[in-house]
Amino acid sequence: MYSKGVNAEERLIESTRALLWERGYVGTSPKAIQQRAGAGQGSMYHHFAGKHDLALTAIRRTAEELRAAAEARLSVPGTALGRVTAYLRRERDVLKGCPVGRLTQDPDVMADPALRAPVEETLAWLRARLAQVLEEGRAAGELDSRLDPPATAATIVAVLQGGYVLARASGTADPFDQAISGVLALLTLHAAEAARHRA
Amino acid sequence: MYSKGVNAEERLIESTRALLWERGYVGTSPKAIQQRAGAGQGSMYHHFAGKHDLALTAIRRTAEELRAAAEARLSVPGTALGRVTAYLRRERDVLKGCPVGRLTQDPDVMADPALRAPVEETLAWLRARLAQVLEEGRAAGELDSRLDPPATAATIVAVLQGGYVLARASGTADPFDQAISGVLALLTLHAAEAARHRA
Repeated sequence: MYSKGVNAEERLIESTRALLWERGYVGTSPKAIQQRAGAGQGSMYHHFAGKHDLALTAIRRTAEELRAAAEARLSVPGTALGRVTAYLRRERDVLKGCPVGRLTQDPDVMADPALRAPVEETLAWLRARLAQVLEEGRAAGELDSRLDPPATAATIVAVLQGGYVLARASGTADPFDQAISGVLALLTLHAAEAARHRA
Repeated sequence: MYSKGVNAEERLIESTRALLWERGYVGTSPKAIQQRAGAGQGSMYHHFAGKHDLALTAIRRTAEELRAAAEARLSVPGTALGRVTAYLRRERDVLKGCPVGRLTQDPDVMADPALRAPVEETLAWLRARLAQVLEEGRAAGELDSRLDPPATAATIVAVLQGGYVLARASGTADPFDQAISGVLALLTLHAAEAARHRA
């Protein structure tokens, strides 16, 4: 499944990510990882202590990618609302779901403190980062001073994660898009009010 | 696990609900249902066509309960915001999650149109019911006329479903509570603005 140019270690990590996504931790066997990676058992145990070590590496990489994708939108110049909008409206494979959020539904990942840590930390980081952006918007007079940045940030992350749930239930991205539009409209109305008060 | 007073049909339904919750559709065998219900194979096939029929009955009941619990809060007299608040703040077993929303993570339930229908319909009903309440609040001048009821309703349901995801990731109900507080604060600020405009 991978070109010969990619080394075995890399193929093993990517195969584990794909299998965790498709089958969950319990359904991912060392043998299946090796087969998908086109790597032997010796190669796997040369690079990794075992399935748990590989899963941890795979989950950490997924978490880092989510963080980098969020930071790319949240750190651009512009208003707080513009940055939050860019983040929420970025292209997503809505029906597939969030690669990090979905791990909360894997009981074996949640029951293992090491595997769970990157999931917990990434969602906590996302809330803190959004709260920081909202705080900047509040300090700049762009957002209402009564807005509570940490609570609003939790709302935004929950809308995203819950939007995926609604999309999955309906089989379309529509409720996800609606939920995003709804929270952005609430924030936009606030920004408009705050601007009016400043004027 | 059930008193002798409860009939076998009822015990079979409740056992299926518990097993679907704990093990998912694929992990729920007819034998496990019978054992938990204290019912024989003959009894099970007397009342139900099989595991699929039982699962459908179980999922429908879970969906009806969610609907009744929501309706009980949304239909009380009071302002739209008061009713939405009562619904969002009702006591919940946050770390357990939403019994309907969690079914979207069961691939066998989602892949089966009959089993998926009650999940899809219940979440769609909830969005429509909340949109109706918000529309009433808008018509009464309680909420800003620029508020889009269907989008805001999708946001509210997504906040709930996503709040469960965040709670599960963190192992505490705190991010769920924060996400609810955040969306209620946004709605409350709107109601205050709408009241100010009316005055």
